Amino acid sequence: MTEMTGFFYPRTATGKSSLLPPPPWYYSGDLLTVEYRTDPANVARLLPAPLQPADEDPGAVALIWADWQSCGSGGDELLDPVRAQYSECFVVVRCTFSGVTYSRCLFIWVDTDFALARGLVQGYPKKLGSIHQTRPHPFGRAAPRIAPGGVFAGTLSAGGRRLAQAVVTLREEAPANGFVNAHPMAHHRWMPSVEKGAPDALSELISSGSAGFEAGQAWRGDAALELFESPTEELADLEVNEIIGGYFRQVGVTWDGGSVLSSGS
Amino acid sequence: MTEMTGFFYPRTATGKSSLLPPPPWYYSGDLLTVEYRTDPANVARLLPAPLQPADEDPGAVALIWADWQSCGSGGDELLDPVRAQYSECFVVVRCTFSGVTYSRCLFIWVDTDFALARGLVQGYPKKLGSIHQTRPHPFGRAAPRIAPGGVFAGTLSAGGRRLAQAVVTLREEAPANGFVNAHPMAHHRWMPSVEKGAPDALSELISSGSAGFEAGQAWRGDAALELFESPTEELADLEVNEIIGGYFRQVGVTWDGGSVLSSGS
Amino acid sequence: MTEMTGFFYPRTATGKSSLLPPPPWYYSGDLLTVEYRTDPANVARLLPAPLQPADEDPGAVALIWADWQSCGSGGDELLDPVRAQYSECFVVVRCTFSGVTYSRCLFIWVDTDFALARGLVQGYPKKLGSIHQTRPHPFGRAAPRIAPGGVFAGTLSAGGRRLAQAVVTLREEAPANGFVNAHPMAHHRWMPSVEKGAPDALSELISSGSAGFEAGQAWRGDAALELFESPTEELADLEVNEIIGGYFRQVGVTWDGGSVLSSGS
Amino acid sequence: MTEMTGFFYPRTATGKSSLLPPPPWYYSGDLLTVEYRTDPANVARLLPAPLQPADEDPGAVALIWADWQSCGSGGDELLDPVRAQYSECFVVVRCTFSGVTYSRCLFIWVDTDFALARGLVQGYPKKLGSIHQTRPHPFGRAAPRIAPGGVFAGTLSAGGRRLAQAVVTLREEAPANGFVNAHPMAHHRWMPSVEKGAPDALSELISSGSAGFEAGQAWRGDAALELFESPTEELADLEVNEIIGGYFRQVGVTWDGGSVLSSGS
Repeated sequence: MTEMTGFFYPRTATGKSSLLPPPPWYYSGDLLTVEYRTDPANVARLLPAPLQPADEDPGAVALIWADWQSCGSGGDELLDPVRAQYSECFVVVRCTFSGVTYSRCLFIWVDTDFALARGLVQGYPKKLGSIHQTRPHPFGRAAPRIAPGGVFAGTLSAGGRRLAQAVVTLREEAPANGFVNAHPMAHHRWMPSVEKGAPDALSELISSGSAGFEAGQAWRGDAALELFESPTEELADLEVNEIIGGYFRQVGVTWDGGSVLSSGS
Repeated sequence: MTEMTGFFYPRTATGKSSLLPPPPWYYSGDLLTVEYRTDPANVARLLPAPLQPADEDPGAVALIWADWQSCGSGGDELLDPVRAQYSECFVVVRCTFSGVTYSRCLFIWVDTDFALARGLVQGYPKKLGSIHQTRPHPFGRAAPRIAPGGVFAGTLSAGGRRLAQAVVTLREEAPANGFVNAHPMAHHRWMPSVEKGAPDALSELISSGSAGFEAGQAWRGDAALELFESPTEELADLEVNEIIGGYFRQVGVTWDGGSVLSSGS
Repeated sequence: MTEMTGFFYPRTATGKSSLLPPPPWYYSGDLLTVEYRTDPANVARLLPAPLQPADEDPGAVALIWADWQSCGSGGDELLDPVRAQYSECFVVVRCTFSGVTYSRCLFIWVDTDFALARGLVQGYPKKLGSIHQTRPHPFGRAAPRIAPGGVFAGTLSAGGRRLAQAVVTLREEAPANGFVNAHPMAHHRWMPSVEKGAPDALSELISSGSAGFEAGQAWRGDAALELFESPTEELADLEVNEIIGGYFRQVGVTWDGGSVLSSGS
Repeated sequence: MTEMTGFFYPRTATGKSSLLPPPPWYYSGDLLTVEYRTDPANVARLLPAPLQPADEDPGAVALIWADWQSCGSGGDELLDPVRAQYSECFVVVRCTFSGVTYSRCLFIWVDTDFALARGLVQGYPKKLGSIHQTRPHPFGRAAPRIAPGGVFAGTLSAGGRRLAQAVVTLREEAPANGFVNAHPMAHHRWMPSVEKGAPDALSELISSGSAGFEAGQAWRGDAALELFESPTEELADLEVNEIIGGYFRQVGVTWDGGSVLSSGS
């Protein structure tokens, strides 16, 4: 019988059909972030055991828009950019496990299948959505500059409903583009059993972070953020009590796998 | 800490955000099928151990378009049909395992996230695509009737490239809409480890079939089928040597889980 | 020089590239209608001179979802259904001109370019949107039957915002699927001048109706309708004061041109 | 009766619903251009009277990808970027009228309704398509830099078929990003009559150009270009005989109307 290859399905003798190349995965893109505080109980309610709320500022939340190009080590995707470009919007909080602070993505929306499948590997609970983010550009009146006064908006919709919208006005250079998404991620990878009533076929707590990172100057500014109800989402339950700040930064990231923290249900 | 619920991710205290409700899953839709023969070696090359080619007609292939509405047991999706409607196109062959004949989906494209996620549970290797299928309608000149002479077309594109197109002209009533997709499915469920170089975190051979099925009259007719090359697909390698037939049928299906045939790499 | 042909642009020597074939245009599809009353002033505000509000029931409004296949006289679109299928949602009121009662479409959303371009010819003020409508199907639990108790929903979104949603529960057979959209249409065709400050290059009041019509049994039932605000739309200003009824009907329609009622600004 | 306002349809008392704001329209974006020579007869065949082929290099063609943000004078679109961002791919040739050389767009695809509607005003024969263009980015391995060796790809699909793909490798700074699209545009604005057999309701030859322009350094490099057949397109008939060059440039453009060169059929 044939030996099947391919990092992700569909696996074939050649691996050519695989929805994903093996890591490392490379990303170049722009991050628009709004950090805010919600009632810490809202965060705690979304942290499954054995995760604990962060010791400091346990109600801190980051809602992040990212406008990406990505590729595997061959880089072929960049020559057929429908396979490289995607947008995402995701909400991150912090938590602790075994005395270590982690970042954790609670909800995330992307607009391509390859990004959704990478989420399965990385433990990001990805759905499809419609995500837009104002792009900076050096010329003309139809784009902000990356400079004081530059105005950047992010919007998120899914299923034909607006879920979130933010506006960030850059004010000054900053040491970083926020603190909530600054730790290694602690994510669950769950796959239900195909058998009714059986426990999950896969249930792991994993951790991963960047294998490489470079970035431009981070910017900080004023931010406005609105979250909207939807019958299939709980994003709006992370109510905005107090805006911490808005941020913009251009980054280049490498992801090259993670490690299993604990396994089994 | 909070008990998380929800059949699929994202899991929360309420389960409201889950991309999928728990099975049973209900489907109502139209199937357009073209069955043909390719070189049996083309099929064998895509069957991983321990699967063996079917004993009879091992080069038989079914390319199937399906225009679905689907829902969970609550049926809420039908009141917000963006959450219920999707199209798919998939290629099925037959194989044997432990002396039993199974159907097996080699490649499949859908156009929504919930359908893609269900594929992960059921072992269908789903990618996103753009799938269209002529709909029958009882009135006007812009639709075929389900009757002799009715002409139905199916098209499949992904990444902005046409991958397949078929035209079926109904000729007569038939006992079934093909034989290739008539067995329980034998699928692999694979999830790569998050750790580089480690074996798959999940590797199962599973089987599942319909928990319920009702259908209208099956129709048979003449069929034409073209497959096209793509740098990320191997569908066209299943070269069309001889058309067996084209079929159309309206069906209602229930899926309610399956069973694990073998587990571990 | 070359003689250009083609009903719509782009025009070429062959006409092959034209976004539209010449009429007649054929349509087969399902109509889901909710009729209701708004304050007649809301309707009058959207009727430009020389149109007058209808004499009877001047606040009657129909919001209609249509799930179409369409084609030109050659019917080639049905063999490549991405060129035939589209959905639309549109709002219709009645008005009078020269003593004759007309229907008039105030706002309309479609999801393909060919449908949008046909609107330019017919005077429908089409924008792109995301439109979904529950489909009837004879089998399975994931679709209503066209029968008492059948529940049909329609949703409309544009720019990632939900604009309207309706649910209709069929109760009984009815002589027609509403009365608001039952007259010839009176539409303006406007094209701004390319020169700043100049009057419209085209400004016509035209009328058109069906050149052919066949239909199944109309059904009537209970209806619920919600309209939502958007920064770029005025649909929600046609506030729902009183539901008249909900309707479902399958139809086949031919459109083959209209006539100019008055021309010039 | 109500006075209707709004630059484009739908026109209302407030103008809020108009698909387009009045000019000026502002654009910020990146242009990827491949210029090549086809048989001059291929160009002449697509120039309607009274246009004549260009005196010099009459077979020169530019295929241009543009990745835009755009807005009206209020700039609100930039705060809801789904209303500002779009991509386009268009083919331009040169022609003469009354002794003046013009550029002329023969075919163009965009991916939003507002861009399509602006085309109607400006005389661009726009259809919807799926257009992708590699984006430059200063960080990471998933994007080229705007520098020697930077590789940029453009792809165009419509109706689920690939129509064109290009790869440009930057080599050196250049005085301009091509010469074919460097003149004012000479476009026809045609609107068929609603009456069968009647002459066009609108038939104008118009001219327009940029009311404002700023740009970064233009780059020149090697280019590869492939055009593909489609049953509804004639782009591939503009066969590539000889590549002139590939170009990349970031620009800011203002469009503020044009003038009518000649009117009537």
